[in-house]
Amino acid sequence: MKKLLDDPAQAVTDSLRGFGLAHADQISVHTEPNFVTRAGGTPAGQVAVISGGGSGHEPLHAGFVGAGMLDAAVPGEVFTSPTPDQVLAAVQAADAGAGVLLIVKNYTGDVLNFETAAELAEAEGIEVASVLVNDDVAVEDSLYTAGRRGVAGTLVVEKVAGAAAARGASLAEVAALAERVVAGVRSMGVALTACTVPHVGRPSFDLADDEVEIGIGIHGEPGRQRVQAAGASDITRRLVDSVLDDIDLAAGARVLLFVNGMGGTPASELYVVYGVARQMLADQGVEVVRSLVGSYVTSLEMQGVSVTVAVLDDELLELWDAPVRTPALTW
Amino acid sequence: MKKLLDDPAQAVTDSLRGFGLAHADQISVHTEPNFVTRAGGTPAGQVAVISGGGSGHEPLHAGFVGAGMLDAAVPGEVFTSPTPDQVLAAVQAADAGAGVLLIVKNYTGDVLNFETAAELAEAEGIEVASVLVNDDVAVEDSLYTAGRRGVAGTLVVEKVAGAAAARGASLAEVAALAERVVAGVRSMGVALTACTVPHVGRPSFDLADDEVEIGIGIHGEPGRQRVQAAGASDITRRLVDSVLDDIDLAAGARVLLFVNGMGGTPASELYVVYGVARQMLADQGVEVVRSLVGSYVTSLEMQGVSVTVAVLDDELLELWDAPVRTPALTW
Repeated sequence: MKKLLDDPAQAVTDSLRGFGLAHADQISVHTEPNFVTRAGGTPAGQVAVISGGGSGHEPLHAGFVGAGMLDAAVPGEVFTSPTPDQVLAAVQAADAGAGVLLIVKNYTGDVLNFETAAELAEAEGIEVASVLVNDDVAVEDSLYTAGRRGVAGTLVVEKVAGAAAARGASLAEVAALAERVVAGVRSMGVALTACTVPHVGRPSFDLADDEVEIGIGIHGEPGRQRVQAAGASDITRRLVDSVLDDIDLAAGARVLLFVNGMGGTPASELYVVYGVARQMLADQGVEVVRSLVGSYVTSLEMQGVSVTVAVLDDELLELWDAPVRTPALTW
Repeated sequence: MKKLLDDPAQAVTDSLRGFGLAHADQISVHTEPNFVTRAGGTPAGQVAVISGGGSGHEPLHAGFVGAGMLDAAVPGEVFTSPTPDQVLAAVQAADAGAGVLLIVKNYTGDVLNFETAAELAEAEGIEVASVLVNDDVAVEDSLYTAGRRGVAGTLVVEKVAGAAAARGASLAEVAALAERVVAGVRSMGVALTACTVPHVGRPSFDLADDEVEIGIGIHGEPGRQRVQAAGASDITRRLVDSVLDDIDLAAGARVLLFVNGMGGTPASELYVVYGVARQMLADQGVEVVRSLVGSYVTSLEMQGVSVTVAVLDDELLELWDAPVRTPALTW
């Protein structure tokens, strides 16, 4: 294993320390337990939007803490849910009197630990709502999940919820908007190579030199099938077909097309995939009104890509377009 | 070779097509020959700032085309200089009557081809100035270079020159500011793995499972030495020591610290390197006033990192901070 780390057991903390120093103008890193908040905190009277999950998916979630998106993020150990006390500490720090929305990717550990933290926070008088993201169409029930996994679509939920909170929406309104994104967002990914969890020290799975795994999860969990590696067009068609099979898009539907790198894939390849996916949507009469291309929801150094399609009605489009200033997403 | 590409010979064009579709609000992609301009073109009467070079380093350069940075970028084939006619076409398209600054990384092919294009443009009455970037302290003379190579520091030159042009500076002024950045910027990189050029189909070099190459170039050109892979602290110290040995930084000097991923390295590792480098600079009494961490000047899917230190005086700091809106860099 060759990685730019010192003690693998300290990888998350060492990385967070550097992240905090590099972006001190935007975020504050807290340790014991680990969580990240907006520099200056949640504006008074504003709903706090919080997400978290295992580390190894950077910039998700801590890279999206800042004005117009998340008020706090809770990174667990690599590919491991944050503990309830971590989540609770973030909730306590970020609550600004208007309640807290927890955005949770659908993994069993995350669901349990965020639920426990929510109960503890409520017992302290903090109002909490939760939304579960389960955009991955690849598989029902998986290595770490009952039901569908939450993957790159989480970014869209976080952006919309954060924008709604910033314009002064109530907790119920922010939660309803987040649920509306969840209802209309679907993703599917592919892996070309495996990744290596630092404290494990060997690749999470084996993939032959001529194979790719279609429907991979963001922890390298098994997908739908292994197939012979083919070109970008063939692979992209498998992903987009699966996404479109799962969502009822009327001709003329307006969507965000988000092509997400898994960490080790160059930007140039993501744009090739984007071009193919864009053409496929055009062929279906679906209008791509917004685009995002980059490595935002990753699996360490895994090579691969996911394609996310999210329906944007007028209100969601306006919230997507609203200003955002975070370490990893700014407009 | 597993890559998300179709025909390797068409990789650059396919990628550019997707890039153009994804960012049509900010840039325009031109083909035959390939170049990229700002959507809407260079504002009338403003100096046009242009850069280019071999593809495979994305988002450099095309990802930095937009308001406040580049007016055009010229991507060659992968790791191959753009041709003079490509550069000339970009100059003709981007010139808005105030002349053109060409920012050229110091590789023999780039130097020759940009020079030829500059002569052709001048023969047509377009005023052209050029600045050569040679920030890599690793080696003098290399596989593709006489003198030092130009690497990640190029981003800093492009940002400052673009900001100067946007505030109405003359061609001579923009060129002088770019030269001032070049005088105070130094970089050095390391590779953990090789990358594979699509039309070649095999890794550019071999590196043992327990080796890293210190002082690597952004095309995988040989560096200073191969050493046993060690932790992030050991590797970062080698890079930062080499950079600091080469530049005369007074205690109290104010710098940008830019930790750049080579393409296949996760963000979490870049922040570990950042933390170590930051501490080393603090120990020398050097003040890090700005930071940039991310994969901006890459070598396809190579795993590795480079560390860039750039001196920022008051004027350069103001230009660095000036608004920028491009596909890959926005604030």
